[in-house]
Amino acid sequence: MTIQNRAKASKTASIQLAALDAETKNKALEAIALKFEARKAEIIAANREDCARSEAEKLDAPLLKRLRFEDEKLSEVIEGIRSLIKLPEPVGQTRLATQLDNGLDLYRVTCPIGVIGVIFESRPDALVQISSLCLKSGNCVLLKGGSEAASTNRILAEIISEATVAAGIPDGWIQLIETRADVNEMLKLSDDIDLLIPRGSNDFVKYIMDNSSIPVLGHADGVCHIYLHEDADAAKALPILVDAKTQYVAACNTMETLLVHESVAAQQLPEIKAALEAKNVELVGCAKTREVLQIGEATEKDWRTEYVDYKLSIKVVSSLEEAIVHINTYGSGHTDAILTEDEAAAKTFMALVDSANVFWNCSTRFSDGFRYGFGAEVGISTSKIHARGPVGLDGLMIYKYKLIGHGQTVGEFSSGKLSYTHAPLDRDCPL
Amino acid sequence: MTIQNRAKASKTASIQLAALDAETKNKALEAIALKFEARKAEIIAANREDCARSEAEKLDAPLLKRLRFEDEKLSEVIEGIRSLIKLPEPVGQTRLATQLDNGLDLYRVTCPIGVIGVIFESRPDALVQISSLCLKSGNCVLLKGGSEAASTNRILAEIISEATVAAGIPDGWIQLIETRADVNEMLKLSDDIDLLIPRGSNDFVKYIMDNSSIPVLGHADGVCHIYLHEDADAAKALPILVDAKTQYVAACNTMETLLVHESVAAQQLPEIKAALEAKNVELVGCAKTREVLQIGEATEKDWRTEYVDYKLSIKVVSSLEEAIVHINTYGSGHTDAILTEDEAAAKTFMALVDSANVFWNCSTRFSDGFRYGFGAEVGISTSKIHARGPVGLDGLMIYKYKLIGHGQTVGEFSSGKLSYTHAPLDRDCPL
Repeated sequence: MTIQNRAKASKTASIQLAALDAETKNKALEAIALKFEARKAEIIAANREDCARSEAEKLDAPLLKRLRFEDEKLSEVIEGIRSLIKLPEPVGQTRLATQLDNGLDLYRVTCPIGVIGVIFESRPDALVQISSLCLKSGNCVLLKGGSEAASTNRILAEIISEATVAAGIPDGWIQLIETRADVNEMLKLSDDIDLLIPRGSNDFVKYIMDNSSIPVLGHADGVCHIYLHEDADAAKALPILVDAKTQYVAACNTMETLLVHESVAAQQLPEIKAALEAKNVELVGCAKTREVLQIGEATEKDWRTEYVDYKLSIKVVSSLEEAIVHINTYGSGHTDAILTEDEAAAKTFMALVDSANVFWNCSTRFSDGFRYGFGAEVGISTSKIHARGPVGLDGLMIYKYKLIGHGQTVGEFSSGKLSYTHAPLDRDCPL
Repeated sequence: MTIQNRAKASKTASIQLAALDAETKNKALEAIALKFEARKAEIIAANREDCARSEAEKLDAPLLKRLRFEDEKLSEVIEGIRSLIKLPEPVGQTRLATQLDNGLDLYRVTCPIGVIGVIFESRPDALVQISSLCLKSGNCVLLKGGSEAASTNRILAEIISEATVAAGIPDGWIQLIETRADVNEMLKLSDDIDLLIPRGSNDFVKYIMDNSSIPVLGHADGVCHIYLHEDADAAKALPILVDAKTQYVAACNTMETLLVHESVAAQQLPEIKAALEAKNVELVGCAKTREVLQIGEATEKDWRTEYVDYKLSIKVVSSLEEAIVHINTYGSGHTDAILTEDEAAAKTFMALVDSANVFWNCSTRFSDGFRYGFGAEVGISTSKIHARGPVGLDGLMIYKYKLIGHGQTVGEFSSGKLSYTHAPLDRDCPL
């Protein structure tokens, strides 16, 4: 089947899937979990094939680590599916109810978006997370994973499809796309695909945006900042900075630039340097930083760089305002934190920093769907519309307006015979 | 100033505007209303200039009618602004509050999107509606109106800018763009413009989507349907059909295709034809329709056409399912209605028709921001993400996550020393 025909099949399936009840979807999710347990040996064998091939092809060690999918990862994704089952049904929730007139009632009711195209990196657990979130939210999904994980992705998608279709989910709701050429085909299918979620670098997300008229929810770079205000509590700050930089350097929510108020630079930077260097972090800084620390020079490019590595750029600023302007200029709108004991400064920072996640006195690493309590995430959106920050079930929903009348016409209102009451209704949509 | 510099200025203003309090914004809205009253003669003179020029250029009568902006229209927009002032403040509303741990509180708080580019047709009242909605929601706006309304738009934008900046709104928050070349420049500014709202034909909206990587909220064609089910109450149906087709043919929410169940076609179509022909509606139909009525043939193209005129296509279908498939195939996802006395049929229709607005036993013409009680609208979205259907203040908002801690690090949770509570909080974000 061509990608176009497969997307059309998804579109058709999406109409039926959107109308399915919670029980059927939850039973299908449980069927996936059971099939994963039953076919564990096959999954692990497929993954070992991927790992052996990738090792022979000299894939980087961190990527190899992300590719590995054995007992522990499998248990984690099964646990993830079962916690998703317990979350409330997202489809069919009444979000607004207004009486337009006696016997003319308007409801805004949540519904799935439709068909979602997701392009993700090598981690096979992302495939399971994304497809189970899509199923729970009633969306069809076209998935393209990394080629390193081809065998693992194939068996996972096959199991998910078989288990769910047997449980009553429309055939074609999940489809795996395997080649780059197919991805390029997919980008053209704006009639049948409603949303693209690319997970990767800024350049990759920009490529998708530039080459498709389908709406894009961008999971792009995280150039995250922590700003150390003049009154920051040093004892609180140090563990936060070490955590934000080193707890997991490959994540998009790690700190890449530290901003320090000039009044505390001389006093606090040496201790910060010692703590970070003890964790093998390379530091580069602005001229004022280098008056205090003997480190390399940070260039203009550094301020825009997501290192995802043991490296940090440091800039001394003369005010809260300068810190905010720096973040809004060089940041990626992902996650930025202020460390201060001054509530007014925190309030200003959180109001004026134009990022999806703005934190006060805690690590940027908290920016994550699981940690936020969303059960799972399809990614962290740096877009300014639809869904921002960690995207869980909510971000995969839209709504439709249902208007229930008894023969009303607009003419009767325009002529003045009837007039709108616009009274809030305290009830859910009856259908 | 180049468009790029003007967009940059807007971006800068947007940070300040996002943090402004409700009182300042409402005072600025009142200042617009007062200035409109004070400078009424100038506005009307500018509009007469536009009308005279357009008449000389032989602009179509319906467009000329929409262009006219005198006493009555001015009073309407002033009234619109004052009703907007009364609506609750949309910025800073807490939509989710979760305790992640003792002393680590997460809030999802509404905020403006940022800078919005709106391209709209000749109606000058659209300029006032859109810019006042943007101001109330804390968004900056770049506006491009129709060239027919150039003088009217210029004076309206000038008054709005002067009145609001004097009332404390950051300079540059509203900017008028006048040439097509400037629009093409604007489409490239994805760093500084967060959302485009084009109002026009499907082809126009598609052009914008194909030529910009900025997210687009499409206000496109309305190919709206009414489906007359086998048990529809004829006495209720007839006024609805006449209203949906003829109450205002130039609107996007008028009925363009009527679907009729085959079991009632022979009985009801003649009466429907008589009622619509009395209003000068031209009918075309499928083969089965033409067995009952002597009318022209509807081609494949008719099913996809938004006539915005006194014309209607009619198709006889053999089931509710066929009606739903027809609508999902040929419709534009705008507004579709079912006329039936059977609640189960209505429920199926409303669940399976994939449109922004699905109606039961009332006219498609109700699909409108004012009629829905939203105060005003920037357009009716046929997009499947962010905002769907009539878009008022809600559709101009996004949110940010605010996380307030006391020194917490992720490492303490990963190591098992602490664990997430994920308990809902019953309070608004304190900052």
